Amino acid sequence: MKIILLGSGRVATQLGLALQNAGEEIVQVYSPTQAHAADLAKKLNAAAISSISALRKDADLYIISVKDDAIASIAKNLDLPNKLIVHTSGSTPMDVLASANIGVFYPLQTFSFEKEVDFKDVPIAIESNNPESLNVLSGLAQQLSSRVIKLDSKQRMTLHVAAVFACNFSNHLFAIAQHLLESQQLDFDLIRPLIAETAAKAQQHLPATVQTGPAIRKDEITLQKHLDLLKNEPHLQEIYRLLSQSIVNLR
Amino acid sequence: MKIILLGSGRVATQLGLALQNAGEEIVQVYSPTQAHAADLAKKLNAAAISSISALRKDADLYIISVKDDAIASIAKNLDLPNKLIVHTSGSTPMDVLASANIGVFYPLQTFSFEKEVDFKDVPIAIESNNPESLNVLSGLAQQLSSRVIKLDSKQRMTLHVAAVFACNFSNHLFAIAQHLLESQQLDFDLIRPLIAETAAKAQQHLPATVQTGPAIRKDEITLQKHLDLLKNEPHLQEIYRLLSQSIVNLR
Repeated sequence: MKIILLGSGRVATQLGLALQNAGEEIVQVYSPTQAHAADLAKKLNAAAISSISALRKDADLYIISVKDDAIASIAKNLDLPNKLIVHTSGSTPMDVLASANIGVFYPLQTFSFEKEVDFKDVPIAIESNNPESLNVLSGLAQQLSSRVIKLDSKQRMTLHVAAVFACNFSNHLFAIAQHLLESQQLDFDLIRPLIAETAAKAQQHLPATVQTGPAIRKDEITLQKHLDLLKNEPHLQEIYRLLSQSIVNLR
Repeated sequence: MKIILLGSGRVATQLGLALQNAGEEIVQVYSPTQAHAADLAKKLNAAAISSISALRKDADLYIISVKDDAIASIAKNLDLPNKLIVHTSGSTPMDVLASANIGVFYPLQTFSFEKEVDFKDVPIAIESNNPESLNVLSGLAQQLSSRVIKLDSKQRMTLHVAAVFACNFSNHLFAIAQHLLESQQLDFDLIRPLIAETAAKAQQHLPATVQTGPAIRKDEITLQKHLDLLKNEPHLQEIYRLLSQSIVNLR
């Protein structure tokens, strides 16, 4: 397939590389910032463009992979009445693309610019407004990943919210741990094996069934000691209290 | 060394197995519930006792590994004036042991009964009220683990609080993700690769430097969409709001 990437961020970068590795042809990379387009285009042996008017009209698939609030405005400027246009966003309804032949291609992973991602285990959620394009997207997704799933926009957003809790918020809790350790001149490395084991457990078990810690034990004495230790950081006390209460509620 | 374990819970079980594997001799296992003592004693080729009065007085080390609020009362009943007595708790000061020769042996990991733990990478925090016993504990800890660290009670409690954030609370966020996915008949398996990658990133980077997601991007539109999706679960909305705000604050 001839594919055009609109966007040059982390998702566009990793998705572009994965598509190229799968043998697809990325013909153009668009970014309003020419240098950004050029950086990614170089990696993908594609042409860099910084103006929508320079967009080729003969591609098979147009992938909009930009910040959520920019998707609609880019889509509005495309004049590709019958071409398949998709976005890669978890929380944006498909229909903001406002064209005849549209879809979604949402890879659920946390991406960085540097680290190349093995897509094989990355779930890809697809959606389209017509069965032919859904087939096209399904075939493409299956070239990259063994976990392709058809989700509607509501399901996809739920998946995204779940990912925010499991990934973004967890990472923030790791950052709070880092902050606490640093306050006592302790190395973050001390806690890395625990993080690895916590994630490993979640690969084997349902997390609700393997909860540990003072809250699930209703160990009020330890909870109070911990709140005392956090007394100069009321904001962390609040998080500690809320999550401990939530553990008890979900029990 | 001849070691007596007081306790038969998850930490006592995994620590006992690790000490046995390292060639130490567990001579007795105490639990007020004879069946619990017997279960663990059998695994460790030790004698099971359910009365403190049956405790042998010729061991080299007495390890109290019970619920935090039971440590002091067990220690009070021991009549071992010069013997080294330690507990394994993160959040309990050493001095609750109230004896002449005391210490702490705190392995930082999340333990279960079934899964045997490789202690090699498990940090072990040690403390004692005298240098000779600190040496004994250091030598013993180094037989099990390559990460032995001397911490005072305040540092150890900070490490424990950091562990609650990084491990117990993260697991709870995974459980919330599980709950959200189930509400849309989606499989938890969808999010497992993301959890694995999030933990893998924390092995390589400091988490504060690799934060992703709508909060750190200040993507207000997505944040609002997510809060709307959670509108029937005000408790989850509250967690979402608080952690998103905390991400912005720590930035």
